[in-house]
Amino acid sequence: MDARGAQGGHGERIRRDAAAAAAAAAGTRLDPWFSSYAERAHGMRASEVRSLFAVANRPEVVSLAGGMPNIEGLPLDFLADMTSRLLRERGPKLLQYGGGQGEEELREQIVEVMRHDSVHAHPDDVVVTTGSQQALDLVTEVFIDPGDVIVAEAPSYVGALGVFRAYQADVVHTPMDDHGLIPEALDRTLGELAAAGRRVKFLYTVPNFHNPAGVTLSAERRPQVVEICRRHGVLILEDNPYGLLGFDSEPLPALASFDSQSVVYLGSFSKTFAPGYRVGWAAAPHAVREKLVLASEAAILSPTMMGQLSIATYLQTYDWFQQVKEYRQMYQERRDAMLGALSEHLPQAQWTVPDGGFYTWLTLPEGLNAQSMLPRAVTNLVAYVSGTAFYADGSGHRHIRLSYCYPPPERIREGVRRLADVVRAEQELVEMFGSGTAPASGHTVEAPSADQV
Amino acid sequence: MDARGAQGGHGERIRRDAAAAAAAAAGTRLDPWFSSYAERAHGMRASEVRSLFAVANRPEVVSLAGGMPNIEGLPLDFLADMTSRLLRERGPKLLQYGGGQGEEELREQIVEVMRHDSVHAHPDDVVVTTGSQQALDLVTEVFIDPGDVIVAEAPSYVGALGVFRAYQADVVHTPMDDHGLIPEALDRTLGELAAAGRRVKFLYTVPNFHNPAGVTLSAERRPQVVEICRRHGVLILEDNPYGLLGFDSEPLPALASFDSQSVVYLGSFSKTFAPGYRVGWAAAPHAVREKLVLASEAAILSPTMMGQLSIATYLQTYDWFQQVKEYRQMYQERRDAMLGALSEHLPQAQWTVPDGGFYTWLTLPEGLNAQSMLPRAVTNLVAYVSGTAFYADGSGHRHIRLSYCYPPPERIREGVRRLADVVRAEQELVEMFGSGTAPASGHTVEAPSADQV
Repeated sequence: MDARGAQGGHGERIRRDAAAAAAAAAGTRLDPWFSSYAERAHGMRASEVRSLFAVANRPEVVSLAGGMPNIEGLPLDFLADMTSRLLRERGPKLLQYGGGQGEEELREQIVEVMRHDSVHAHPDDVVVTTGSQQALDLVTEVFIDPGDVIVAEAPSYVGALGVFRAYQADVVHTPMDDHGLIPEALDRTLGELAAAGRRVKFLYTVPNFHNPAGVTLSAERRPQVVEICRRHGVLILEDNPYGLLGFDSEPLPALASFDSQSVVYLGSFSKTFAPGYRVGWAAAPHAVREKLVLASEAAILSPTMMGQLSIATYLQTYDWFQQVKEYRQMYQERRDAMLGALSEHLPQAQWTVPDGGFYTWLTLPEGLNAQSMLPRAVTNLVAYVSGTAFYADGSGHRHIRLSYCYPPPERIREGVRRLADVVRAEQELVEMFGSGTAPASGHTVEAPSADQV
Repeated sequence: MDARGAQGGHGERIRRDAAAAAAAAAGTRLDPWFSSYAERAHGMRASEVRSLFAVANRPEVVSLAGGMPNIEGLPLDFLADMTSRLLRERGPKLLQYGGGQGEEELREQIVEVMRHDSVHAHPDDVVVTTGSQQALDLVTEVFIDPGDVIVAEAPSYVGALGVFRAYQADVVHTPMDDHGLIPEALDRTLGELAAAGRRVKFLYTVPNFHNPAGVTLSAERRPQVVEICRRHGVLILEDNPYGLLGFDSEPLPALASFDSQSVVYLGSFSKTFAPGYRVGWAAAPHAVREKLVLASEAAILSPTMMGQLSIATYLQTYDWFQQVKEYRQMYQERRDAMLGALSEHLPQAQWTVPDGGFYTWLTLPEGLNAQSMLPRAVTNLVAYVSGTAFYADGSGHRHIRLSYCYPPPERIREGVRRLADVVRAEQELVEMFGSGTAPASGHTVEAPSADQV
């Protein structure tokens, strides 16, 4: 059987399974508790796209959808010995509850990590969380009443939009260009919202190697963004999971470095070390940090001691920054593979050129719809996330987020080739029958799954 | 220096530090974001009692306040070898993101654990959470709109009341006796609430070795409680962290064993194994389980793989039930030490006789106030949790929760002796000056800290 035949066979099976999965998701089940749910829960539902992703996770599909880091380079023998020693020597501490704010030993290390972003914090400013996702959840819980406005980049991280939606926030997008958030547009957005009497609680922003847009807020704009928010009395929620993963240069100063009292800074070990421990953090102004600790204690009592002390010890005893440098090089090679393949196979599209992180943001030729094209892409054994996932307002149909973090370079090139085939077929259809862009109605932001982060 | 002198010296220092801590907690800080908080966040604040507990955690104080398990008996060498092997052999899986519902490998083990409670679930019914505390949070998030009613035992677990409060639920207590929830009273409570047009979303109950009351719902009452709730169309949230820690007999059938479609069952490894991994679970009717997974993905993306696979492997390869039996014996000895000391030193009080778990519930002689007595107890180097922490309505002043889980028997006896001294001194004051019971106004439920679980 030749490769094409095998692919066709896979495609057929996948087509059938995808159809069955979509039918199951759409089918109604009898739910005796349906009328008991909170208002916020009625929007929580598994979508067709989600079912499709279950299919897309098969090994024969090249997934350019996932946000999972490639952790193959981690020093497993070192970690095995380190953890074994920790359990033998400090077992009763590792296996016990800890304090709600997180271990001081880890918070001291976190303060050192944040120095790379020019943030000078005190361990007392830090609260350790179950990944920075929980920090997102806690900040939203502490600040958002239903109907409050959060201003966020267009597009924004799907997992943040999911949290904002769970707290019934109203997300207003503000545009970016290749240098990140546009200060003049942000100022105008905040001014218009104030004039309309809307309550803006915070600006949510990913300044470095943006997820999904792949762009970085320029050095010049950083103090401007801080000044604009301060002038409008709006807190900044700075989400920085990828900051240390820049390819060509040292990190730019974080927004928090300009005014620590106006910024809640979120960090994570999921991309610079490993997500399996579920450890992230928030650094916040003192009174906000106190609220975050109380909210976290209500939600989980305390973060994992096993995870916290493992990470603290790794940071103390391993050359972790060398590991980060290896990650940088590995991801840079993958970015180069992706951009090279895009130039070769998809010259009719446009894309951003990321200087770090995991993602590039593709703009399809006019008339194409990334959302309706996705099932055909999966049938052709390549997966991506439709741009619509990254907008709260139903736009984004012409966009695609492509991840280069997980598959090796050769698979990335193969994935882009397959995607290009789908795009070409789609363009032919559009030329014959007109635009396939669906109207923006009925769009819902979904809860993220780990393969979309 | 004699023992009394040493104690007096400690007492003096502790008195000063407690006063300073209370002043710091009461002092107002300038908080520029005060007006930005969500309504739910305004009740989140560190209280004087909390500051007092920081002092009470000193080694010279006998804490009968904590809910921390005694994990000294855990097989650290086994765990060290097991974890080291896991990291070497399955490191890339342990250190990666997982699915939002939790690993099937662990969910299969959880199903086996629940068989001890006569619950026959399928791994697909289970969602793994960051301790069962997160499961409490998720269920409340999915069901509670502000102002909805949750019916809960009087008294109830302080950590549950904290979550319910964060979601602005209205908690209505229903009474217990030595055999747990009183079915007739529950029926009446639900009937009255329905007649008043109130929306009751669920009954929250801890049927086994109740925290804080120390009582167990009798076998006869279990199907009655399920029937009453079903008749009123009210879901049951069954919280069962201590179920396997019975001293004299095998576990009674869980409420979920009578009607799995009307019960969300919460379980935890924190008391039967170790809390440091932060792994618990919910088993729920299918549609509810789907909502819980979506809510959990929004909150934390996925539970810790490190923790999940460690626990799954421990359950698969170690005689974990023998470990539970050793826990039972150890806790039974501590209960016996506590009840013996109470009989000897505090005959003027009443207390429940727990058949398992961590707690006994003390009723003070009339006229005494557990809340206002606490600073004097801490000064006398013994700590407890005032009964007021376990009521949403400000009652409970005559009650005390005493934990026998953490200190060894000799310390428990010493702690009860110190408590008896405080109670006697308090009784003398009451005889001279009248009742010290404060009115119930101004009471707020606090967020729990790990030493109060």
